[in-house]
Order: sequence, then C-alpha cells, then structure tokens
Amino acid sequence: MKDQQSTLRETMKRQGLTRDAFAEHLGVSRRALDSWLLPATSGEFRRMPGVVAKLVGGMPAGTEPRAAGELRLRFTRKGKPHLLSVDQFDRDTVEELLQVAEAMEPIARRRKVTRVLEGAVLANLFFEPSTRTRVSFGAAFCRLGGSVCDTTGFTFSSMVKGESIADTSRVVSGYVDAIVVRHPDKGSVAEFARHTHLPVINGGDGTGEHPTQALLDLYTIRREFERLGKTIDGATVAMVGDLRHGRTVHSLIRLLSLFKRINFRLVAPRSLEMPPELVEAAKAAGHKVVQVATLAEGLRDVDVLYATRIQKERMSGEALEAYPADFRIDRRVLGSLCRPDTVVMHPLPRDGTPGANDLSTDLDADPRLAIFRQTDNGIPVRMAIFAVLLGVEHLVARDLRDAPWIAPARLGPGDAPFHRLA
Amino acid sequence: MKDQQSTLRETMKRQGLTRDAFAEHLGVSRRALDSWLLPATSGEFRRMPGVVAKLVGGMPAGTEPRAAGELRLRFTRKGKPHLLSVDQFDRDTVEELLQVAEAMEPIARRRKVTRVLEGAVLANLFFEPSTRTRVSFGAAFCRLGGSVCDTTGFTFSSMVKGESIADTSRVVSGYVDAIVVRHPDKGSVAEFARHTHLPVINGGDGTGEHPTQALLDLYTIRREFERLGKTIDGATVAMVGDLRHGRTVHSLIRLLSLFKRINFRLVAPRSLEMPPELVEAAKAAGHKVVQVATLAEGLRDVDVLYATRIQKERMSGEALEAYPADFRIDRRVLGSLCRPDTVVMHPLPRDGTPGANDLSTDLDADPRLAIFRQTDNGIPVRMAIFAVLLGVEHLVARDLRDAPWIAPARLGPGDAPFHRLA
Amino acid sequence: MKDQQSTLRETMKRQGLTRDAFAEHLGVSRRALDSWLLPATSGEFRRMPGVVAKLVGGMPAGTEPRAAGELRLRFTRKGKPHLLSVDQFDRDTVEELLQVAEAMEPIARRRKVTRVLEGAVLANLFFEPSTRTRVSFGAAFCRLGGSVCDTTGFTFSSMVKGESIADTSRVVSGYVDAIVVRHPDKGSVAEFARHTHLPVINGGDGTGEHPTQALLDLYTIRREFERLGKTIDGATVAMVGDLRHGRTVHSLIRLLSLFKRINFRLVAPRSLEMPPELVEAAKAAGHKVVQVATLAEGLRDVDVLYATRIQKERMSGEALEAYPADFRIDRRVLGSLCRPDTVVMHPLPRDGTPGANDLSTDLDADPRLAIFRQTDNGIPVRMAIFAVLLGVEHLVARDLRDAPWIAPARLGPGDAPFHRLA
Repeated sequence: MKDQQSTLRETMKRQGLTRDAFAEHLGVSRRALDSWLLPATSGEFRRMPGVVAKLVGGMPAGTEPRAAGELRLRFTRKGKPHLLSVDQFDRDTVEELLQVAEAMEPIARRRKVTRVLEGAVLANLFFEPSTRTRVSFGAAFCRLGGSVCDTTGFTFSSMVKGESIADTSRVVSGYVDAIVVRHPDKGSVAEFARHTHLPVINGGDGTGEHPTQALLDLYTIRREFERLGKTIDGATVAMVGDLRHGRTVHSLIRLLSLFKRINFRLVAPRSLEMPPELVEAAKAAGHKVVQVATLAEGLRDVDVLYATRIQKERMSGEALEAYPADFRIDRRVLGSLCRPDTVVMHPLPRDGTPGANDLSTDLDADPRLAIFRQTDNGIPVRMAIFAVLLGVEHLVARDLRDAPWIAPARLGPGDAPFHRLA
Repeated sequence: MKDQQSTLRETMKRQGLTRDAFAEHLGVSRRALDSWLLPATSGEFRRMPGVVAKLVGGMPAGTEPRAAGELRLRFTRKGKPHLLSVDQFDRDTVEELLQVAEAMEPIARRRKVTRVLEGAVLANLFFEPSTRTRVSFGAAFCRLGGSVCDTTGFTFSSMVKGESIADTSRVVSGYVDAIVVRHPDKGSVAEFARHTHLPVINGGDGTGEHPTQALLDLYTIRREFERLGKTIDGATVAMVGDLRHGRTVHSLIRLLSLFKRINFRLVAPRSLEMPPELVEAAKAAGHKVVQVATLAEGLRDVDVLYATRIQKERMSGEALEAYPADFRIDRRVLGSLCRPDTVVMHPLPRDGTPGANDLSTDLDADPRLAIFRQTDNGIPVRMAIFAVLLGVEHLVARDLRDAPWIAPARLGPGDAPFHRLA
Repeated sequence: MKDQQSTLRETMKRQGLTRDAFAEHLGVSRRALDSWLLPATSGEFRRMPGVVAKLVGGMPAGTEPRAAGELRLRFTRKGKPHLLSVDQFDRDTVEELLQVAEAMEPIARRRKVTRVLEGAVLANLFFEPSTRTRVSFGAAFCRLGGSVCDTTGFTFSSMVKGESIADTSRVVSGYVDAIVVRHPDKGSVAEFARHTHLPVINGGDGTGEHPTQALLDLYTIRREFERLGKTIDGATVAMVGDLRHGRTVHSLIRLLSLFKRINFRLVAPRSLEMPPELVEAAKAAGHKVVQVATLAEGLRDVDVLYATRIQKERMSGEALEAYPADFRIDRRVLGSLCRPDTVVMHPLPRDGTPGANDLSTDLDADPRLAIFRQTDNGIPVRMAIFAVLLGVEHLVARDLRDAPWIAPARLGPGDAPFHRLA
C-alpha cells in the first residue's frame, strides 16, 4: 500500500497544484498539509485525518496532468477563482485566456458540441436588467454543457427582506457551481465574491468594471488585426464619445496598456473626458495619449475606432444638452477620415432612433463595421472564462463532436462570409 | 485525391441541397459556386478559396442523404428557415410537418428520450407575456435535448435604450441556434426575421399571426378525426366567438382551406365577424362558408366546434357590452345542437370565472371536449417545427432511448385513457 | 408466446407495483385489470385492449425490480405522486426519504454527476417571488440531469385572463414531467394538484405548508447530530421568534413529533405563540412542550436552537411594535445560555440590517451556526424528493461519474472543512 506522503505528492502533481493551492483545495491550512508530507520519522509528522484521506482518494484520477502554473491560478487571487477586474491580468495571462477562447470557436460557431460541464449549474444573478449580457453568459455556459438558473428581476426577493450580500452569496454558493453577478452598485460584486470560494464573474457593477466586455473587445481587435496582418503593439486606437462614464472604455484602456507603444486618441466632448488617473496610468505604461474634442482631430488614420453610446441613464439633463451633435459616426465621417482597414467597434446597444448621436446604421453594409463580429465574440470569450475558472479548459478538445443540426454560414444578411469562417 | 467538382457535387447530394441552397449555406454567390463546378478546362472555371474548402470538408459526413426536396427548403423562403405565417404551407408540406409531429409523440408522451439537439440553444424572446406559450416552446426544445434562454419581461432592456429590432435580431443570432419571438406589434416578428439567417419562429405578433397555434389546431383535428374514422376533406367546422380579433381562427381558416370541400360555419355576434378578405379567400378556394349570428343556427351537426375566448384586452367597453350572453357553450348547448362525435376545441385560456361568456367547465368530463388534448399537442408540433427548421428531423428516430422515469398514463383526472395512448 | 396473464403479472412484479397502482399507471379501472388477470376459462375473463397491450409491452424492461412497498407509493395518496404536506409522512417513510438524500450528497457536493433525469422537464411555477427557493428547486432538478422552465413573475399571464387553477394545472401537465408550485394562498397548491397526475411539490402556500423546508431542516438536525453523536429521540429543541405565522416551524414541529420524547421549548412573544392545535398535537404524541416568552427561560441546554425571522410582511404595524427587542440572538446570548454543541438553525433569509431583531451576524464564525449547512442541504433533499416522486431513486447510483470540474473544498470563507466533507 502506498504511504500518505506519496499519495499526496502524486495527487498534487496529477492536479498540477502547488502546496498552497492544494491546501486551499482541501480546505486545510498549509501548515497541516506540510506536516502530513514530512517523513514519518519526523517529530512534526502527522497522519492526515480520515476525512481528508477520503477526499484525496476521491479526486478524479483520469484528469490530465496540469501545468504547474495553471492559468486559473495565475490570474486569480488567493486561490479564489474570481474574475472581478481587468487589473487581474498581465500580458501573458490575457493572451493565454484569448487562446483558450480561440479553441472555443468551433463550438461558438455551432460546428462542434462539447458537454464538458454537463451537470454543472450557473447562477446568472442580474440585480439590474441587461438582457443581452445575461443571455450571452447563459448561452456560453450552455454551450459548455452546463445548465443555467436565472434571476432576471430588478430585485432578489430575499434581499428585499433585508438579507445581506454576504448571506445571499453564501446561500447561492450552496446551490450552483459558478456565479455571474451584475449589480447597479460599484464594488458590490467584489463584496459578493468575498463571501464565497466559488467562481464569481463580474457581469458589470455600475460605474465600476465590466471585465468580460473588455476581454471580448480585446479579442475582437486581435482577430480583426490577424485578418488584416496587423499587431496590437504599435496600433493607433481611437475611443470616442462619453469617455467619462463608459466603464467599457475604462476597462479597455487598461487592458490595451498591457501591450506596447499604443497611440491612444481619446475623443470626447468637454466634461465627458476620460478620468485623468486612467490617462496618467496609460502614459506611465509608456503609451502615447492624445486627448481631443472633435472627430476631425481624432480619427485620422486610426487602426481602431471604438465608439461608445452616450450613457443617458447616467447623465443629467444639462450634460445631455452639452453633448454635441457632431459626434455622430456615419458613412461620411468614415469616408473622409478613416482608412480602408480601420476596424469600427461599439459595445452596443447603439441608439437606432433616427438622428441619434451614435454610430449610424448607414454603415451596416461596410465590412469595416465589426460590431456584430464583436458581439458574437462574447460567446467564445465567456466560454473560455468559465472553462478556465472551473479548470476544464484542457478537457474541451477531447470532448468535441460534430453538431448534427444545420447552422447558417452567415448570421446576418450583411455579414461577409469570412465572418463565420476566417 | 478527389477533385473539387466531385467533392462539391457529393456534398450537395449528401446534404440534399440544390445549388441555390448550397451557395446560401456556404455564404457565397450562386455564380461563384457555378464557376467552381465547371470543368477545370473551362475558361470560367475557378478554384474555390481555401476557407470554403475547409467548410465543405467540415460538413458532417455521417448525416443521412436527404431527399432533394427537403421539407425545410420547401416551406421556407429564400433559404431562410423561418416560420412566420401559415401562408408558407401548401397541403403537402403541412401534412409532412404533421407526420414529423406524429413521430415526436413517444417523446412528447415521456416514453422515449432524444438528445439530438444537445448543445443547441434557443432564445425564447417574449416581448409580451404569454407564460403557457413560452413554456410550451421551451419544453419542446428541451425535449429535443437543447437548452433554453428566456426573456420574460415586458421589455428587452437594450431596446429600452433605443436599440432597433434589426440590431437586437443580429446580436441574439450570435448567441443561439434558434429564436422564438412573441411581440405585441403585427409585422415585428417578420422584421426581426429579416435580419438573421437563423431559424425564427413567430410566437404571435399582435393581431397578426400565430402559426404554431394553427398548426397544433390542425394536428388536433387530424388526430381526433383519425380516432373517429373521419377525414378533414368534406368536414363541417364551426368557428365561434370573436372572429374579428382572434388571430387563431384567422390562421386556422387559411390552413384548413388547403384541404377540400370544407363547410365553414362562422358564428359571431355582429361587429365581431370574420374579416371579409378571409371569408372571400376560403370561398375562392372552393369551400362553403356560412356566416350566422347565433349558436342555434351554426352548431347543428358540426364535426368540429372551435370556440374562442372574447379577446377582452383587444376590445373597447362598448364592443364588450354588445357581446351577447348566449355565446356561452355548455352542456345544454352541446346536448341540444351537437353530435356524439363533435370535437370541441378552444385555443385557451378560457375564462373560468362563474358565468363567463366562454366555454363552460360543466363540459370537463365530456369526452368530446378536446381542449387539453389540443394543448398537449403543442409539444409534438413545436418539436417538429424545431427539428425541421434545424434539419434534424431524420435523426430523431435513431437517437431514441427509453425514458427511465415513471410517467402517468393519464395527466388529468378527467382524461380518458385513450388520450395518452391512442 | 406468453399469455396475457403472465405478461401482466411479470410486468407488475418487475415494476414492483400493486394491482391498484398498476391499474392507475395504465389508466384503467382496477376491475378491468382484474378481469384480464382471470383464467381464460373464467366467464369474467376479458382480453385486454390492443392499446393497453402496446403500453404494457413498451414498459422499460431494463429497470430494476422495485420493492413492493416502493417509497413513492407509501407516502403519496391515491397513486398520485404529490408532496403537499408533512402530514404525508410517518417515521419510516421520512427516514427512508432522508437516506435517499444522503445518497445524493456526492452529487450535491459536485464530486459526482448523474444524468438520470436527462430529457425530463420541470415547471417551476412561482406565483409569489422567492428567488432562493426557486433556484434551489431548479438546481436540484438540473443536478439530476433534467431541464427547468421557470415562471418568475408575480402573475401567470393566462390566469390574469381569468383562467382557473384547474385549467392551468392541466395545461402545464401536458408540457412537463414535474411541477413545483409556490403560491401566496393557503390551499391553492393542493387545488393545483387535484387536477393532475403529475408529480406536484408544494413550494410554500401562504400561511399553509412548506414541506421541503421542514424536510431539509430535519435532515440538517439528523446530520449535525450524527457528527455530534446524538440522536433525535430525546432531544431538546427550542423554536424561537414568531411562532404564530412561521409555517416553517409549524411543519417542523409536526415532523419532529414523528420521533420519540422530544422536549420542545417554544419561545415567542405574547400574541406570536405557536397555534394551540399544534401544541396539543405534539403533546398528544407523547412529547413535552414548554411555552415561554423570553430567551433566558427557553434556551438553556438545548440541543437545537431554531430561530425564525419576524415575518414582517404578515404582521400589522401594532404587532410589529409589540415584538420585543430582546429576541435578538447573538454571541452574548449563545455564550450565556447555550452549550458548546448546540446546533443553531434558521430558515433564512435573516435580516442583516444593523440592530435587526434576528439572528446576529456576529455568530458567523461560530461553528455552532449551522444555517449555511442547512441551506446547502436543500439540494440533496430536493433531489431526493424529485427522484422518489419520479421513481428513479434506485437508478442514480448506477448512473454516477466523476465531475470533471474543480469544486472548492469550502464554499464560504467561514466554513469549517468538515462542512463539505463529513
């Protein structure tokens, strides 16, 4: 029979876990684990309790050896598999995550099916309505084989009765395997995450963060550039519109700052400029930042034009009036200022009402308009996040089969065929 | 190695696709496809791009040869798998669709399980509440093995922010594999469908259409008649109640008109008559149409009595008052006017409050009352629609296994045993 | 070829069904079944109809022989698989049900996956909001492999149009395989169940019952006592707070009364006492019941302290004011009155606002606080209820495989490791 020390060592190796991560995983202190690994002759040596032995014995033997620096452990904190902020990433980890997303493409495009998360349940907790984000997360989890429990109301009924975020978090953790939280208040998703060891993903917390949006934006730039033969290092990226309230651009400027020599063009009407601390951080990271107030000054020869909707629900009437009409981006603007290979992006929704001061629909047939490729990219990126946080990204490739149903080559009538195929 | 022309021809044959449908499926023009199929010696011959070759190579080889006139291609338009209106059907296609529904019965009755759509996701978009229709579509998709993302609110949050139906349609298409849309405005489901190549099913658009309800009504008549040894050709069908606003009866009269020599009895109070263009269309198709204003005139010796609820939410107070009390269909009416084999139907919900001017609950034990068999039939019919639009109807029979759980022989206490068994 | 009588007898034996249950299952009268089982020479002998023969022939042959007194048949009534009230149980059946829940633990703790209910659909009908209860039922059904259709609104849209509970029940029964109903009105879940043969589970009906909560409470006491080396027989159980309106404690006192020699301490402010008929019933069953009005009198040396939230939404302003501040249970109370092994429970949610007259958060790190173990236990208990009502509890053990994803050893930061492991 194998001795305790060998059993523990082999299990750690098989799971690719450090001693800290293994102790965390077992729910014991690092010190206790160390004592079980000492030679039996040592005075400090301890036998592991029966209950721990049972847990170790029950760990799946068939799983692959994981790399010691498993992605999940490298961008999360204190062994807790949370995605709360883009600040968790460095360039290596963000690029590895996007590679996992690439591997999800055949599933996201309905050519392949995986069931790797069969039996797992996601709680999709939306304390603020956002139908498309909710459906994107839900569909991504389903495409990995899991099931989804939604809460779609404005309120979580037990919180109405005075329940704390802490209690809600701990209770829901007993029901499911991963939790997406969207909340109107900045910081409340982090508060939710503090009270659980389950994977928690920030689905947007008020004026705070929306990290999965920034990751799918970066993924989109990467894929568009790949097609165009460009690299992110050295690119010129214009961000346009309400840069003050738009958490999307706040997260994106920080993610792009992980790359090299970006030329940022920040185009915003007075009073809606990018917060100074974000501008300073980008400069400090070695990037060039130009702040201007008109499209004419900002859009010439950019590689990426990232337009944002005016966040009407976050502005006062006065600020709304100050938003000048010439921030509308249409065919004329693109024709006179941009290049044939400029990538036009937008976090959506855009205001489609006639004359709206937003990205115009007269661009819908223009192949530079990447907004729907961008929103499509939410599926593989969110699949990758779930797979990595739940530690199954290495199992997906072995679990693929052909999708038996007929999927269209193009989704929208205006889509170029390369969209689904490239 | 096989040449390009053979590869393309064999794939088309295997998939049962015409050149037009195959080009659509690949996302290329018909002209491009033609040029790839020419002899290599022709001056017009072109090599297909690598990306297309990859797509063709990736088409599931294991699927069955399909009939050249595949059902999906025969009742949909321009290669787009949409079910928007009963006008899409002719007698052949509607009968074939109902045969597919018959094949779904062992699953709908919980004797068998299929997982053919495992990995597929349905967006169940209800811009207007209709719990039962939503659950019926959702359950049908689940019974094929798929997963469902619901939106149940009155509003789609991004549309509140000014997003167009076009954008919503295209964005949701990036997330899922099929879309059911219910919307309060006539024509808006067609508008939604215009912007996607994914399967879209009209779940009711205001005063417009509700094609799946009409199909399940027709399926019910077919099954009841089969049991009674009758045929739809030559049948006498009474439609009763508010025939002006009831989209259900509008769709049903058009579907039944695909058959031969129907005797329609349209029984409606003044001002709530069937729209004249529908009456004229039925007559033009060779059917007999009698319009009367009382039950006594309309119900004698009918094969089908199709009662409808007064659509209170679509009527003004004055019209409501004009609705005469003697449109209540109860045991007395049935006993004095109808035959022992008259099939009594209703689209439900019926008004169950005492004295309501609707189909009475005193009929609940009467075997002629087919209303619950009718609503049960929503599952196999909606399963058939999903299976056909996603091109998997031929795979279901090969994917069946026994349901391991215990299903009751009868669902309701008043159900005759033949209900679940016939 | 086998004769009709042998076929029927063998099928009954294989399914472990009595004649009554088998007749119910076939949807025929007991008398008809008897006539088919008579010797062919008897004058009363009848051939079974072809349609019945088909059904019998189609019964899964591979299923295990069931015990004649199958659990499902022993605590349900008239062959209808409903869980409406704790009164359905005796000590044997409740203990067997909790043993099934024990067998679900590896799945509830995400070590194992089962797909035994794959293809089955649950309708989770919440006519009153209760997010956590809804998610708990939904997640439990998903963990058995099934799919869930939720209705989360305050209203069921067709009921708004005047539909009766009877019609809603019968219609939904045509769509799904099991139904959970939560309703604000006492008795309405029983009314719903009257109109269907499908499994119906009472998810709480106003001031009526909430049997699954009581079952998970009992399961929690059993598991905590097992760890502590105690038995339920002879235990001292304090119930504290609003005992008049709390349906949870009403159900729990009845369930505990199935055991022996319980010492009940009912601690409630005047006007919020336990209803006298429940007190009398417990005494009549041989238990000791002490009713007091202060914590000091009630909590000394109890084995279980079951605290309840003040049901503000069910009280008038006057009664609210009369609720004395010294019903707050905190570290000081526990330290001065309780034992080191007292199990502290609460049905949750608790009021977490500062100074709330409820279970205090200053106890969160105290291992005696079992409230999150208690809510976690909702999953295995509800899984057991579904499995038993659908007759698949014996199939789960044969359908287990390892969960491939990483589940944390502890859910909350304050959880002791034994929580997930014991």
